[in-house]
Amino acid sequence: MLDVCLLGTGGTMPLPRRWLTALVTRFNGHSLLIDCGEGTQIAMKEAGISPNPIDVICFTHFHADHISGLPGLLLSMGNADRTDPVTLIGPRGLVRVVTALRSIAQELPFEVRMVEIEDRTQEFDLFGYRIQAFRVNHNVTCYGYSLSIPRAGRFDADAARRQEIPLKAWNRLQKGERVEMDGRVYRPEMVMGPARRGIKLTYCTDSRPTPAISDAAAGADLFICEGMYGDPEDAGKARKKKHMTFAEAAALAREAKAEELWLTHFSPSLVGAARYMDQVTEIFPNASLGWDGRSCTLDFPEE
Amino acid sequence: MLDVCLLGTGGTMPLPRRWLTALVTRFNGHSLLIDCGEGTQIAMKEAGISPNPIDVICFTHFHADHISGLPGLLLSMGNADRTDPVTLIGPRGLVRVVTALRSIAQELPFEVRMVEIEDRTQEFDLFGYRIQAFRVNHNVTCYGYSLSIPRAGRFDADAARRQEIPLKAWNRLQKGERVEMDGRVYRPEMVMGPARRGIKLTYCTDSRPTPAISDAAAGADLFICEGMYGDPEDAGKARKKKHMTFAEAAALAREAKAEELWLTHFSPSLVGAARYMDQVTEIFPNASLGWDGRSCTLDFPEE
Repeated sequence: MLDVCLLGTGGTMPLPRRWLTALVTRFNGHSLLIDCGEGTQIAMKEAGISPNPIDVICFTHFHADHISGLPGLLLSMGNADRTDPVTLIGPRGLVRVVTALRSIAQELPFEVRMVEIEDRTQEFDLFGYRIQAFRVNHNVTCYGYSLSIPRAGRFDADAARRQEIPLKAWNRLQKGERVEMDGRVYRPEMVMGPARRGIKLTYCTDSRPTPAISDAAAGADLFICEGMYGDPEDAGKARKKKHMTFAEAAALAREAKAEELWLTHFSPSLVGAARYMDQVTEIFPNASLGWDGRSCTLDFPEE
Repeated sequence: MLDVCLLGTGGTMPLPRRWLTALVTRFNGHSLLIDCGEGTQIAMKEAGISPNPIDVICFTHFHADHISGLPGLLLSMGNADRTDPVTLIGPRGLVRVVTALRSIAQELPFEVRMVEIEDRTQEFDLFGYRIQAFRVNHNVTCYGYSLSIPRAGRFDADAARRQEIPLKAWNRLQKGERVEMDGRVYRPEMVMGPARRGIKLTYCTDSRPTPAISDAAAGADLFICEGMYGDPEDAGKARKKKHMTFAEAAALAREAKAEELWLTHFSPSLVGAARYMDQVTEIFPNASLGWDGRSCTLDFPEE
C-alpha cells in the first residue's frame, strides 16, 4: 500500500495557513517527495512525517515555489544524521540549479545524486516505485509524474506442484527470479499468473491541459492536478499564465478515466473555492478540493 | 518612532509554530529586514506586515536558516509590483551567494543592490536609519547590527530671532542645511541645540559572547540577542557550536547597560525555556523571552 500526503495546496507564494503544493508518498519504508517549495519541510513536520527517509525528490520545474525549500530540507535531513544517498530527478538544468542552491547547503553527510530527464517521457525504477515523468506545457520546461507500484501475478501453487518444482525454489520464483536447481531451470512464468493491477498516482502542476497529461493519468487511482483558478471567468488568465481552471483539470480526469481527482496549486487570490465545485463535479463526479495535509492510503485492489 | 517586530525565534531549522529568527523594523515609511530564513515571508504576513516596502535587507551571515527565504521574498515583492530598488547588506560573499540563489528568482521588476561589509565595524546611512554592522564570533564570518534613528537638537527660535535669521531659512536650518540668503550665510549650529538622544536597537545572532557585541549594544533601548540554549549545562555545547546560553546573552546586556533584552534563536531541541529565566533575570533584570511576532514601538524619549 502507498501512503499519500498532499503537503500543501498553494501556488506562486506560501501564505499563512496555506503551504506551497508538494506531495510526499511512503511505500515500504521509502519516502518520495514531489516538489519542495519554501516551507515544505515545515508542512511535513506538521503532517507528522519525518523528512529523514526521503530517498527520492522529483521536481516538476524550477520556479521558486517548487524548489526553494530544497536547501533547508537537505540540511534538516543532514541534521537528522542521514547518510544514505538522496536521488533528485528533474528537468534539464537540475544540476545547475541545485548546485547554485547548495551554496547555502554545502556540507551534507550524504551524497546528492542528480538525474536530468532527457526525453518527453521517461521511466525510473527506484525503491519499488515506478516513476514516469511526462512533459507538460508550462512557460518553462515542466514535467508531471505518475508513481506506480507494480504488482506481480498470483502464484499458482497447484501448477508448481504439478511441475514438481521444489518448495525451496518457490519464494525466489515469486520474486520474479529465474532458479537453477538440481540441473533443472525454473522460470517465474511457469508458476505466476499475469501481472495484477497495481497502484497508480498521477501528479501534475503548472501546465495547460494537454493530452500528455490525460494519457499519463489513464486509469490512475488518484490524480492530483493543479487548478490555479476556480472561476470559469479566469479561463483567459489561465491560458495566458499557462495554468488551468478547475474545470480544465476535471476534463482531464474524465478523459483519463481516473478514479479520483484532487485539485491543488491554488492562486493566492483564490478564496471560496468550494462554490465552484458543483460545476466541476458535473464534469468529473469524483473531484474534490485538496487541503494542506490531505492524506489517503492507496491499496492494491481486492480480487 | 520605530516599529519593531521579531518575526521568529527559531535557530537552525524552521518548525511548526516557530519561524526562523528574523527582525523587521518600520520607520517613516521604510521597512528594514534583518535575515530572511525559510518562511520569513509567511511570518511577515502572519504579523500583518507587507513585504513590499522593505528597502533594506541586512544579513548576519549565509547559513541557510538566515537567508534561504530570500528568493521567495524577492519574488513576492515583485508580484506586488515593487519597482523601487532593494539594498542588501551582508558579509563578503554576499554577491556570490545572492547571485546563486537568484537562479530561481531571475526576473524581478526592481533592482537588487548589494553592499558587502569590508571592515570589522561599518556604518551605512539609509532611509533615515543609521545602520552599524559589527563583526561577531561565529564559525563563519558573521555580523550583528545596531539600528539607530538619530535625533537632531532642539531648534532655538529665540536665538534665530536674536540673530535676525529670516523666517524662510528656519525650516532648512532645522533640517541641518547651510543656508545662503541675501548675502548672508546661516549655519544650523547657530540655532540648533546639541543632538538629542535618538532610538537604538541592537540585534545579534550566531555568535559567542564578545566585547564587540556589548560595545555595539551600549545603551540600546532594545537588545535582541541569540540564546541558543537555556540550560546552563549546555554551556559546553554553546562554546563548541559558537552560540550562547541565555545567561551569556544576559551578561552581554548587563555589560552594555541596555534598557531591555529579548532572547531569540532557540535551538530546535529547546523546550520549556521559561524555567531558565529566573537565573537570567538575576544577571539582567529586564530580560525576557522573544516569541514569534513579538512587537514593540520605540519612541524618542520625552524631554
